[in-house]
Amino acid sequence: MIGESNGWSIKETSFDPGRLNHGETVFTIGNGYLGSRGVLEEGYPGEIRSTFLHGVFDDVPIVFTELANAPDWLELEIYLAGERFGLDCGQILAYERTLNLKDATLRREVRWRSPKGRTTRLVFERFASLADEHLAGVRVSLIPEDYEGTVELRAGLNVEADNLGLKHWEGIAQGLSRQNAWLNCQTRTTHIGLAAGFSLVVAAPEQVRYRRWDVRGHPTLSAISHANAGQAVTACKWVTYWTTRDCKNPLSLVRRRLNGLVRLDWESAHAAHCQAWQQEWERCDIVIEGDPEAQLAVRFNIFQLLTAAPRHDDRVNIGAKTLSGYGYRGHSFWDTEIFMLPFFIYTRPEIARNLLSYRYHGLQGARRKAVENGYRGAQYPWESAASGEEVTPTWVPHYADRTRQIRIWTGDIEIHISADISYAIWLYWKTSRDNAFLIERGAEVILETARFWASRVEKVPGLKRFEINDIIGPDEYHDHVADNFYTNAMARWNLRSAFTVIEWLKENAPQDWQRLRRRLGLKPSELKAWQEVIDQIFIAYNPRTKLIEQFRGYFQLKDVDLTSLEPRQESVQALFGIEETNQTQVLKQPDVLMLLYLLPDEFDYETLQVNYAYYTPRTDHTFGSSLGPSIQAIMAARMGDKTAAYEHFMRAARADLFDVRGNAGDGIHGASAGGLWQAVVFGFAGLKWTETGWQTRPCLPPGWTRVAFKIMHNGQTLSFEIKK
Amino acid sequence: MIGESNGWSIKETSFDPGRLNHGETVFTIGNGYLGSRGVLEEGYPGEIRSTFLHGVFDDVPIVFTELANAPDWLELEIYLAGERFGLDCGQILAYERTLNLKDATLRREVRWRSPKGRTTRLVFERFASLADEHLAGVRVSLIPEDYEGTVELRAGLNVEADNLGLKHWEGIAQGLSRQNAWLNCQTRTTHIGLAAGFSLVVAAPEQVRYRRWDVRGHPTLSAISHANAGQAVTACKWVTYWTTRDCKNPLSLVRRRLNGLVRLDWESAHAAHCQAWQQEWERCDIVIEGDPEAQLAVRFNIFQLLTAAPRHDDRVNIGAKTLSGYGYRGHSFWDTEIFMLPFFIYTRPEIARNLLSYRYHGLQGARRKAVENGYRGAQYPWESAASGEEVTPTWVPHYADRTRQIRIWTGDIEIHISADISYAIWLYWKTSRDNAFLIERGAEVILETARFWASRVEKVPGLKRFEINDIIGPDEYHDHVADNFYTNAMARWNLRSAFTVIEWLKENAPQDWQRLRRRLGLKPSELKAWQEVIDQIFIAYNPRTKLIEQFRGYFQLKDVDLTSLEPRQESVQALFGIEETNQTQVLKQPDVLMLLYLLPDEFDYETLQVNYAYYTPRTDHTFGSSLGPSIQAIMAARMGDKTAAYEHFMRAARADLFDVRGNAGDGIHGASAGGLWQAVVFGFAGLKWTETGWQTRPCLPPGWTRVAFKIMHNGQTLSFEIKK
Repeated sequence: MIGESNGWSIKETSFDPGRLNHGETVFTIGNGYLGSRGVLEEGYPGEIRSTFLHGVFDDVPIVFTELANAPDWLELEIYLAGERFGLDCGQILAYERTLNLKDATLRREVRWRSPKGRTTRLVFERFASLADEHLAGVRVSLIPEDYEGTVELRAGLNVEADNLGLKHWEGIAQGLSRQNAWLNCQTRTTHIGLAAGFSLVVAAPEQVRYRRWDVRGHPTLSAISHANAGQAVTACKWVTYWTTRDCKNPLSLVRRRLNGLVRLDWESAHAAHCQAWQQEWERCDIVIEGDPEAQLAVRFNIFQLLTAAPRHDDRVNIGAKTLSGYGYRGHSFWDTEIFMLPFFIYTRPEIARNLLSYRYHGLQGARRKAVENGYRGAQYPWESAASGEEVTPTWVPHYADRTRQIRIWTGDIEIHISADISYAIWLYWKTSRDNAFLIERGAEVILETARFWASRVEKVPGLKRFEINDIIGPDEYHDHVADNFYTNAMARWNLRSAFTVIEWLKENAPQDWQRLRRRLGLKPSELKAWQEVIDQIFIAYNPRTKLIEQFRGYFQLKDVDLTSLEPRQESVQALFGIEETNQTQVLKQPDVLMLLYLLPDEFDYETLQVNYAYYTPRTDHTFGSSLGPSIQAIMAARMGDKTAAYEHFMRAARADLFDVRGNAGDGIHGASAGGLWQAVVFGFAGLKWTETGWQTRPCLPPGWTRVAFKIMHNGQTLSFEIKK
Repeated sequence: MIGESNGWSIKETSFDPGRLNHGETVFTIGNGYLGSRGVLEEGYPGEIRSTFLHGVFDDVPIVFTELANAPDWLELEIYLAGERFGLDCGQILAYERTLNLKDATLRREVRWRSPKGRTTRLVFERFASLADEHLAGVRVSLIPEDYEGTVELRAGLNVEADNLGLKHWEGIAQGLSRQNAWLNCQTRTTHIGLAAGFSLVVAAPEQVRYRRWDVRGHPTLSAISHANAGQAVTACKWVTYWTTRDCKNPLSLVRRRLNGLVRLDWESAHAAHCQAWQQEWERCDIVIEGDPEAQLAVRFNIFQLLTAAPRHDDRVNIGAKTLSGYGYRGHSFWDTEIFMLPFFIYTRPEIARNLLSYRYHGLQGARRKAVENGYRGAQYPWESAASGEEVTPTWVPHYADRTRQIRIWTGDIEIHISADISYAIWLYWKTSRDNAFLIERGAEVILETARFWASRVEKVPGLKRFEINDIIGPDEYHDHVADNFYTNAMARWNLRSAFTVIEWLKENAPQDWQRLRRRLGLKPSELKAWQEVIDQIFIAYNPRTKLIEQFRGYFQLKDVDLTSLEPRQESVQALFGIEETNQTQVLKQPDVLMLLYLLPDEFDYETLQVNYAYYTPRTDHTFGSSLGPSIQAIMAARMGDKTAAYEHFMRAARADLFDVRGNAGDGIHGASAGGLWQAVVFGFAGLKWTETGWQTRPCLPPGWTRVAFKIMHNGQTLSFEIKK
């Protein structure tokens, strides 16, 4: 992947089958309603095709639920003088694929010589309209260079779409007319109805004959014409999707829509789409001068967040791999709240509100989870999907021995997410001043998670001390630990924030407060108990050394010199094994630094220095958590170490573009993308809210000459520009 | 399901959607190469379609491997004057479906009124040729009764065939000509190539126009014509399958075959098929007079064995559910050797030889399993599929709580199958006198399993006693038991038989013996150790009471009065739970009686009486093992209890026809089918080999006036007839 000098295009100039799946992830497009991997229209052996629609989950063994790959709108086969076009045969004479980030349009140009020696030039374009989330279009223009013959285009919609082999759809009905076809189906277990329809419009020098292939489950239109050498044939496939999540009768909306699609003009539909994207970029862009690679990577990562963000749906979240691949099956983690949400909160608060409302709607599931575990309040699931239910797999097949199972503990004991969600709500409220949201939705989450923490902590008999035992912190190299600093400090923060919210409600919305208090059955005695926890929860801060122990007993673990393991091409966990890694001080990500990042006012700068010095060399930055590098970049910037900051930053920036972790084929690293935005804004630009308002404390990497971006605060747009 | 008075037809006279899947199992047809469930050609919501080809396994989560549902040869859609024919719409005016067991032909007659009120009479016929295992045909003849209009038939082959949602096939290529279509594909993980092709031949009063729908993965032919009221249109779809298990290039064989199929005459192809079946029935039929239901049920069950039996392949076995459904995913158990094989050994020894050769080919896998567990010789897998590897699932999701897993122990510790396999080889050899098989294949299995047993037993320190601890016997209500009587006695038998085989080889094939001895590294010291095990293995026989304890400590378990639980509609295990059932004396099937059936000469008749009296009331006959009733019928017959014998017999006879266990939709109970044949021959007829040859000691159920059957012995066909 290389960038163009304009800073807006991801370009691939040769076709490498060995990087097929990586390319599919990188060239993903989406419009916040759907996301589609960058597969080739005509197909390719070994491809991983997927189009995911937000919220369309269906059941699956082992991981419980996953986004169901929808019948594919991109399917378009081409026959040239009777020969099937495909990059797996013939000869590629020229190839270029460009993702234009500015207008979210993917374009591929190919000069191809068929097995029989005929040369054709083809240009493919596609976009999923941001102006109309139920519209997507793919267009191909082709010119026979040195032959004349039939040109046939075949477009279909296949109900047998599968998720890596597993079918999720059962057909209900289908239909075809001259240039339209539609399909009505539903997911097998969750019974979400999906209707999809398309129009096929072919412009050719000679008459076009359309044929209908009414094969059950796969209605297909074939358009045949004839072209002489040098004559262009252009085909456009417009697709519309509706589901029972959007409306009562998706099929009727599809059929109504199909009435006009055949006359839809590509240029005007595309122009509306471009305009919508222009508005996004006006609010969300970051300009970096002096470092073209960083510029392009930052835009690419912002682009990923924007394509995956629900504009008109407050019952969905963004999965860890956005809508771009099968990794984590569309499940959402704290990745959204802690890594992605700051970007939305500061640039697109409307989207942040949708994402946080998803958590509000998940309160019932979180309450159930708390009750099932013997706690009170709301315990949010570590992984969640359609509802607020916990969907972390409990047992997965062993990677090497299929007769064995591995127990996944995160769904049981990685509990910090409940505080993380409250933290994001708090940040949204403080930034947007969306009091209505706090009153109607946010406060209840903050209070119920506080209640959870107060019931989750354990009082040490005879001591004025509360502990949290048997958990996993963000650093997943260590499980079943006690008093994880990140978790304890966030729990305390959550409880403190509950009081702040209560005070605010009492003052600003007393009637709402009374209603909420009654509904939650909050009594003074309970609040008193909360205060006790705040005062007595164990925080492993040593005021003398200022060093913080990540969890109880951490300092007694084996200290490993990570540099002695270099060069390595796998994680420390893969190298040592799960059990042995657990016995070392090596971290997947540094929990202490993470907490100091989120709650900078709770500890002084020297504490940050001491802990940065201690934990940085003990962290598996290269193959540990993909969430780590961007935050590490920020902390390095705060230390004034520009070189280290830039190194970590670029590791995050390249995660997907250069597949530095070898798993980009599974989908975009959404949290890393969100962290990258934070790294520029809060790291290099050093943006900080002070008593006198927003201030920057820049620490630009070498070479960067200018950084410019905007944030929204309290409904106002603020522009920042930093020049060196 | 009801029978016809001729004793050869399974007939269904009304269409009940609530029994759809049960009917699919009952109306399964097959030819020993493939088996296809009795689905409706045109499809029906909720159907479970499957066509399984022997040996075509592919990987799958949880259960490791399964027979891959092949692209469906039965797919045939009908459009009448533009309306789709289907039993899910319009009105069924008349309906009859008949499985003719004599010639293995399924026929369906329907009078159907369309939603728009047009009436059509349709007759469907299908067969999978026993004369040519690569040929199957489906034919429909239809007559518009009260309208004229277009008649359209659509026939396809769909590569997206799935196993309950999971796809196993990836397409390689496809093609269509005027009346032919073909598909080339392979399984996703095991890369077994499959080519399938079909010809569509439509005879109509007016011209027939064929259209080709070249939809990728689903090549389809549509034939359109026109008929007036009263005019018949007949369509025939001939299908051929070849795989890389049969030949090097399946596609070339399919294409060659397609050259002639369009001219193939239904009557003559069907006649060859009928003739092949006539030969089968001449050898395998059992005539029962005086009890039409028993007559039909016995033929139905023999039919199931014959349709699933590989004629030309000695590397496949018959799965527990034959080729008729997804139950146990095509895996083979001891069901084959102990329940089905006697039927083949005595009527179709050529097939028995194929099935036993499968076990010979699995020796390597069985040796590996023994080594992995720290033993010697050959430990056969509890479940096996394509190879001789163990494919019992180790962990399956909990039936009620999907976050939990249940450990399946049978693959680890249900070890009696190694002796069961040797037993079947021994029986085959003694009955067929196929010395070549013994020398080349059978002896090695018997010696290697004997070696396994000698290494598996545990010597009790200080005692002249060998034990077998921590196993599961055939009675799976009790796991992790010690000294299961069935297992210990079969192990002893296996070791003894090894000596008999060695003696026979020494005398009759001394060179082969020397070669085998050297290859296996058998030393006198090892044989001496075997003899020690034979002499000292614990057999829980009490010579005073003649009562045998099923396993150590069994008599101390809680005694439950099963009659007190009546009426019940589920198994005792489902009622009490796995753990609690383990603590009772209730049996899934009676291991002691089973052993006394297999090795009748080792204990006297009084022992049989005592143990029959003890174990019969403690067995869950109704919802325990489906393997139990047929053997219990035999034992009851030996006790002279005709009423009980008949009751157990009919429970087995009705297992699939009447779905008495509620799981017939998963597929045919193959072991029960084999047991039923044994119940007639060895139970009611009382056939027994004595010093003076074969003798019968009849104990016919009330009403039975005549029983006649044939067996083969030493290459001779012997006929038996018992009249009351």
